[in-house]
Amino acid sequence: MEGVDYLVDERKKAQFDVDAMKIVWAGSRHAFEVSDRISKLVAGDPAFRKDDRTMLPRKELFKNTLRKAAYAWKRIIELRLSEEEASKLRFYVDEPAFTDLHWGMFVPAIKGQGTDEQQQKWLPLAYKMQIIGCYAQTELGHGSNVQGLETTATFDPKTDEFIIHSPTLTSSKWWPGGLGKVSTHAVVYARLITDGKDQGVHGFIVQLRNLEDHNPLPGITLGDIGTKFGNGAYNTMDNGVLRFDHVRIPRDQMLMRVSQVTREGKYMQSDVPRQLVYGTMVYVRQTIVADASCALSRAVCIATRYSAVRRQFGSQNGGPETQVIDYKTQQSRLFPLLASAYAFRFVGEWLNWLYTDVTQKLQANDFSTLPEVHACTAGLKSLTTSATADGIEECRKLCGGHGYLCSSGLPELFAVYVPACTYEGDNIVLLLQVARFLMKTVSQLGTGKKPVGTIAYMGRVKYLMQCRSDAQNAVDWLKPSIVLEAFEARAARMSVACAQNLSKFANPEEGFAELAADLVEAAVAHCQLIVVSKFIEKLQQDIPGKGVKKQLEVLCGIYYLSLLHKYQGDFIATSCISPKQASLANDQLRALYSQVRPNAIALVDAFNYTDHYLGSILGCYDGNVYPKLYEAAWKDPLNESDIPDGYHEYIRPLLKQQLRAARL
Amino acid sequence: MEGVDYLVDERKKAQFDVDAMKIVWAGSRHAFEVSDRISKLVAGDPAFRKDDRTMLPRKELFKNTLRKAAYAWKRIIELRLSEEEASKLRFYVDEPAFTDLHWGMFVPAIKGQGTDEQQQKWLPLAYKMQIIGCYAQTELGHGSNVQGLETTATFDPKTDEFIIHSPTLTSSKWWPGGLGKVSTHAVVYARLITDGKDQGVHGFIVQLRNLEDHNPLPGITLGDIGTKFGNGAYNTMDNGVLRFDHVRIPRDQMLMRVSQVTREGKYMQSDVPRQLVYGTMVYVRQTIVADASCALSRAVCIATRYSAVRRQFGSQNGGPETQVIDYKTQQSRLFPLLASAYAFRFVGEWLNWLYTDVTQKLQANDFSTLPEVHACTAGLKSLTTSATADGIEECRKLCGGHGYLCSSGLPELFAVYVPACTYEGDNIVLLLQVARFLMKTVSQLGTGKKPVGTIAYMGRVKYLMQCRSDAQNAVDWLKPSIVLEAFEARAARMSVACAQNLSKFANPEEGFAELAADLVEAAVAHCQLIVVSKFIEKLQQDIPGKGVKKQLEVLCGIYYLSLLHKYQGDFIATSCISPKQASLANDQLRALYSQVRPNAIALVDAFNYTDHYLGSILGCYDGNVYPKLYEAAWKDPLNESDIPDGYHEYIRPLLKQQLRAARL
Repeated sequence: MEGVDYLVDERKKAQFDVDAMKIVWAGSRHAFEVSDRISKLVAGDPAFRKDDRTMLPRKELFKNTLRKAAYAWKRIIELRLSEEEASKLRFYVDEPAFTDLHWGMFVPAIKGQGTDEQQQKWLPLAYKMQIIGCYAQTELGHGSNVQGLETTATFDPKTDEFIIHSPTLTSSKWWPGGLGKVSTHAVVYARLITDGKDQGVHGFIVQLRNLEDHNPLPGITLGDIGTKFGNGAYNTMDNGVLRFDHVRIPRDQMLMRVSQVTREGKYMQSDVPRQLVYGTMVYVRQTIVADASCALSRAVCIATRYSAVRRQFGSQNGGPETQVIDYKTQQSRLFPLLASAYAFRFVGEWLNWLYTDVTQKLQANDFSTLPEVHACTAGLKSLTTSATADGIEECRKLCGGHGYLCSSGLPELFAVYVPACTYEGDNIVLLLQVARFLMKTVSQLGTGKKPVGTIAYMGRVKYLMQCRSDAQNAVDWLKPSIVLEAFEARAARMSVACAQNLSKFANPEEGFAELAADLVEAAVAHCQLIVVSKFIEKLQQDIPGKGVKKQLEVLCGIYYLSLLHKYQGDFIATSCISPKQASLANDQLRALYSQVRPNAIALVDAFNYTDHYLGSILGCYDGNVYPKLYEAAWKDPLNESDIPDGYHEYIRPLLKQQLRAARL
Repeated sequence: MEGVDYLVDERKKAQFDVDAMKIVWAGSRHAFEVSDRISKLVAGDPAFRKDDRTMLPRKELFKNTLRKAAYAWKRIIELRLSEEEASKLRFYVDEPAFTDLHWGMFVPAIKGQGTDEQQQKWLPLAYKMQIIGCYAQTELGHGSNVQGLETTATFDPKTDEFIIHSPTLTSSKWWPGGLGKVSTHAVVYARLITDGKDQGVHGFIVQLRNLEDHNPLPGITLGDIGTKFGNGAYNTMDNGVLRFDHVRIPRDQMLMRVSQVTREGKYMQSDVPRQLVYGTMVYVRQTIVADASCALSRAVCIATRYSAVRRQFGSQNGGPETQVIDYKTQQSRLFPLLASAYAFRFVGEWLNWLYTDVTQKLQANDFSTLPEVHACTAGLKSLTTSATADGIEECRKLCGGHGYLCSSGLPELFAVYVPACTYEGDNIVLLLQVARFLMKTVSQLGTGKKPVGTIAYMGRVKYLMQCRSDAQNAVDWLKPSIVLEAFEARAARMSVACAQNLSKFANPEEGFAELAADLVEAAVAHCQLIVVSKFIEKLQQDIPGKGVKKQLEVLCGIYYLSLLHKYQGDFIATSCISPKQASLANDQLRALYSQVRPNAIALVDAFNYTDHYLGSILGCYDGNVYPKLYEAAWKDPLNESDIPDGYHEYIRPLLKQQLRAARL
């Protein structure tokens, strides 16, 4: 059966140029070419095999990850890959490893918070991986609230050292990836104490392990925090626990770009603006949004292809059953996720631009847009990661029973993805930050301070509070102006309603706490508007390729109309649209499902994922699912013998009524 | 720290009699006493230890399950446990095993579909476990659609045998639990062929393995289908694959209660009404709903206790941070799930009554209520399992980062639960069946046929189509009449709207397919009404115990008001309630959160779960979470040595820049 394409008929149905769409998805021809080349390089190298990952016991799994990480580094050097190519290679190896933290957190922390001398000392070592570092912030008892950290770094002027110490059990560092077994160094966050005074949380470079034999240094307790959700998944990572018993480090290992401790023990601020850290934050969140579109698109690719392969019911006169992708219930769950994958891709692209823009402004000491940028990136991180986590699980369910097998790839994709909802800011905490910004914006509307960027629509609040939607028939819902006005009016009205309710409280903080759930809903409305408007903006650009723009318009329509349907309570309760208009929107949504149907397979082909990267039998490119599932089953360790281990001790005595005598 | 109760202050806050609530939760004093005794018996027996389960490699895990199953059976015999007690013991052992299928599917299939002689021959063997059986229905290419099965059973009149055969790869039996490695027998579903004619799908008792050495019999291929979602979880089960190569079985091994094949090969129906199978179906679905309340309550118990232990932000003047359970965002996510656990418990209790009622009616040849009962149980199965799967994951997120550790118990609880959304009827397929029943009911409204049972409200459709809610202020939403009317009006109007849209299609089946997504929403509205009304009915009974009824009233209010808020689009779009009334309902909901807050810990204590059954450090009874998490970490296999396996091969060469020479 090799070489047969079971989805060839589906691919023939496509009404657009798939190769052109691949470029749009990748962002540029260059990005496409690098991705395409590196993903095939990884897929073709048996050293990067991963189909056995969900079956390996923890120790073997972890050792295997160490092997892949070392091998990947070796290949990067041998092939003289550029930084971009090296990073793509790690991406397509698709296995969480200590290198993620080394390159993604340790190096940037030193770059962002270290002085020039510190960078000159540490970065060359890190770049060559002569040291391996991680980022030790969270503690057993302290996650989101960085200001609550308990680890102390007390300056000892006698020896010109800091004493790093874990005063309580809950102050144990807990969760940092790469910490448990691999890292030789860490950037450790601790409360700086000088002259008995608590100066707040600062970062310190601390060596954890001896570079000769890898043993933990004196006073340092290190370990892995145990098994995590899922088979394979994040169990390839040594998320760690770390305790300090009065560990001394030289004074110059405090990261001193923004504040310093002098030889005399005096605490000082430098003239480097603290706002510079926001640049890093925007960068990290942009990466998370881009990752969301990757993870969601993988799940959607699997579910879409298998929905075209799988048939259930509807057989006429003994003919084949109906492809499940032809059922409207399947379409109404699957196609909004396909549209979301594209929507998140484009909003991620826009965030990339925003990062460049913010960086330039920061360098020019222009901090005016920071609050808006902070709220916008916080909200988009929250919205896209929550939708992606739920979306992956929905895709798993859309594959029926077989989605529950690890060989479908979806269980591991889900398990490895969900932490994104919690790390880098818990999603609900982030939405509350967005809400705080919204309330501040509303309160300043009378002051002449003009809302900018993604919140600019609030400048038209008077109009938005009283407008009525013009939609007269279903196709009106394809007009960007009608759509944007409805989403803007809904967001504005929900924010204003919250502000009005807040004003009834004597104590604003109490009101904020009491109305938190409503505030979160207002924040979601605002964030959805951002994604919708960036998708619409994307379509106002020139997009080459036969039929490509048309397909994206259909997906954009599905994205906003499925949101409008799901949240119709918001739109109707705030009188932004009438029940009749909501019903027309729903009719239009169904019509768009029919339009996307023949293009569905081509639209997931445009992600250009290799079967290796996808890691799913259900999603394999050629659609030849069942023989592959059947073959894969026999690789399970349980199938090593016909008679299972334990038969003689436990099954046979049971069958033969000899349990009384059995040793159990 | 042993023996200290860190939640003692929380427990003191309770405003009701927790012991009385335990009886209400259990269903009766007798049920409570059996559960309490057996759960402690299991918890106290080290043979049933399960805290290592998520760390074991598949073969060890499976062997361990065989040991527990044999040991459980030995204890059941030694202690002369009653059937009720034995079933409770298996429940509290809390590990999916072949015995679930043997007792839950194989034995009932023979009882329900076997003739008296067949029962006399097979049941005694099964009761003593001299044979172990499973239920082989689904195939690699065929799940929900039983009529699409491909396995054949061809009668050979020459030898008086059936020839069981797998004609295609997709006809391989796939998924049956207990099939892969343990079962000696199976009830196999196959297309009966007599005299060249396809008589449809029937059940056959087939021996799979030799009872002396456990080898598969000639012509039979058996294996495990591979690793499934999650650590531990369903990987304790040998879900299997089975292929037949012309396997012959005697004619008397077709289950012949409802239809027979004679010695001459003539196919005949008996006079036993086919509707009898519905009794079993109601029984199975009632069990699934009861399981949903168990699974959801476990997750809620963990998340509630840990939300009281965990503190984040809000520290005033260096005092302790705020318990996260005091945040309204936490309450608005957690308390509706707590209320749902109770709601599902009571609707499960009612389904138990319904089963008795239906059984009596069937015995009296009264089949009149069957369509309503079928729709109602299908809908409740779908609603409760979907809400529970989502609810468990929500509880995991409510525990922050630590919920991602297997020691939180939540990852395994989720992974082991989610198949309930797919097995015994895919949840969306079931909702479409409900929708079909609703459309039929609407179409018959003019005919004088009076809707009965859970659909009786449709008899008042004229009133429900035009009524306006009387709610004038927030507390009006505590009045059952106002609530029921709103839920009835919403359900009726959504069904009628679907029926009207359907009537626009020339071909009703085409219309049903096109409008499927809307029909599913109408079905959900109907099912939510059932759960709400059964909760309200429960509260109209006499419920003893100080403050118990009051607490249940608060939970009932939270249940329906959180639904009303989440689905306000339905209620407002159909003009059942106004936006103002929706807002009042939301105010009342917030007030109820404050009322349940001091009782939250006691309300989860009322589930009476042992720490063993709960299987979660975050949810431990005494709230002493952090030392236990810390201790548990060191048990991970990765912590067996300070220096990880692979250091010398992969980490040291990396650090020492010696990768080129390394063998990778």
